Amino acid sequence: MKSLRIRRVTVIGTGVIGTSIALGLRRAGVHVALADRDTASLAQAQLMGAGVALAPGAPAADVVVIATPPSTIAAVLRDAQARGLGAVYTDVASTKGGVLADVERAGCDLTTFVPGHPMAGREISGPAAGRAELFEGRPWALCPHPDTTPEAVRLVAELVAVCGAESTVLAPDAHDRAVAATSHAPHVISAALAARFAGADQTALSLVGTGLRDTTRIANGAPGLWVDILDQNAESVADVLDAVVRDLTRAASALRGGKGARHDALADLLTRGNIGREHIVGASRRAETEERTLTAAA
Amino acid sequence: MKSLRIRRVTVIGTGVIGTSIALGLRRAGVHVALADRDTASLAQAQLMGAGVALAPGAPAADVVVIATPPSTIAAVLRDAQARGLGAVYTDVASTKGGVLADVERAGCDLTTFVPGHPMAGREISGPAAGRAELFEGRPWALCPHPDTTPEAVRLVAELVAVCGAESTVLAPDAHDRAVAATSHAPHVISAALAARFAGADQTALSLVGTGLRDTTRIANGAPGLWVDILDQNAESVADVLDAVVRDLTRAASALRGGKGARHDALADLLTRGNIGREHIVGASRRAETEERTLTAAA
Repeated sequence: MKSLRIRRVTVIGTGVIGTSIALGLRRAGVHVALADRDTASLAQAQLMGAGVALAPGAPAADVVVIATPPSTIAAVLRDAQARGLGAVYTDVASTKGGVLADVERAGCDLTTFVPGHPMAGREISGPAAGRAELFEGRPWALCPHPDTTPEAVRLVAELVAVCGAESTVLAPDAHDRAVAATSHAPHVISAALAARFAGADQTALSLVGTGLRDTTRIANGAPGLWVDILDQNAESVADVLDAVVRDLTRAASALRGGKGARHDALADLLTRGNIGREHIVGASRRAETEERTLTAAA
Repeated sequence: MKSLRIRRVTVIGTGVIGTSIALGLRRAGVHVALADRDTASLAQAQLMGAGVALAPGAPAADVVVIATPPSTIAAVLRDAQARGLGAVYTDVASTKGGVLADVERAGCDLTTFVPGHPMAGREISGPAAGRAELFEGRPWALCPHPDTTPEAVRLVAELVAVCGAESTVLAPDAHDRAVAATSHAPHVISAALAARFAGADQTALSLVGTGLRDTTRIANGAPGLWVDILDQNAESVADVLDAVVRDLTRAASALRGGKGARHDALADLLTRGNIGREHIVGASRRAETEERTLTAAA
């Protein structure tokens, strides 16, 4: 990689995402200052080598990463811009339309703000779950506002590259519709499936296979954080859930109906599932191949 | 393991499950004869060392494993019993009530038949996907009919142990309700989620993360085989789908409703999802611990 223009970064919020970004940047020799209202979380991130605590009067950062819960971003950004903490700002929230609306309402400076969303996470939270390699080969969406300067986008794209991820620039509403399908609705569906086992039916649990383990892995997410995420992308998530409910309702009624109709309706759904799965695997393979190519060229 | 009473096994159907059982038995020195109407599949399984082709006039096996599609089992069993192929018979179909009803209707000898179901599989099919270790540490349900002799159950349980799996004896209807929740309904739900990507929306596919890959892995199953499985367990699968549809409908309507109700309804579902996921992981851990203990004691 050619010499970096990013030398100092401040990360506000040392949860699993903020700490992972900080560790990825530290690995490339970037100076990282950390801030978190939770002093234990801040201390843990420092202990892991993610950076030093942000000191009053420290020089302004090239990029300030806001890695706090979605509903807090506008307030944190306004405060950070008022204090002049950095030249450029980005966030990591999994919805972008709501965040941008909040940020506009709060009167923040949009020219220096690049809304972002790394497509990676862990089902466990907190700084101790942070990993420098968490974003390697993963997509990272950037959703600039029309007022955002191209220079700000370039700087944040450099930060994304340092973390080993791939920038994808797209409109906030296109982003939100996409992640409703790829991430938010799957989370609700995985929870609805896992919820069948909340009653601890020992007979059923004695027959748990790997399929159920895979399909319910993401059901482990923290409810508080996820209600916040779903709330910010409510309409798009509801649309995906409606479509899934239509398919499942048709499948249930086919299962209760006559044999001929049953076969056709189920075979149709399972075949569409096969095709969709091929597209999903194909997309993942493309991302992995691009990553290998980049690594080989570096 | 103490000396084996099973010395000769015949496996009818050399798909991924039949071939894996044959390989597991061969590893323990058991003589395995193979049969399949598909000569290419039979040749492939032999090539992999899964056994020899069943020859006319070969001595009767201690156990005959019927690893053919669910709807064919009764006919295959009746034929095998008429030819005197073995002392005891078992199958591997993922539903048991339907198979037992078919077998009774076909007038098979129930005293020597032990319906079985190994809780393991691969999302790819065919003998080449067979693995001797596929069943290690996995549950394997046995659902004897009241007429099945205890001696027949003991012999099949020995076969299960040789494959490294754990026998769980339960009633056919309890088995079918349990696997509707742990395996069959999750398959339909995973397909309904993957089906959202059948249209190849490039924006959404550019943001695919690991969560979606995990939740849709099982959507890759062969539609023909799965329609057959779902058909045999229609009522129980429909009941689980109904419950999931209720939860998803409530979630979608909460997302479209006011903020207060939205938070409560979503938090409730996600919390039940967390609890269910804990039970699922706990059950898997118990199975793994028991496996390690057994291995250490062997």
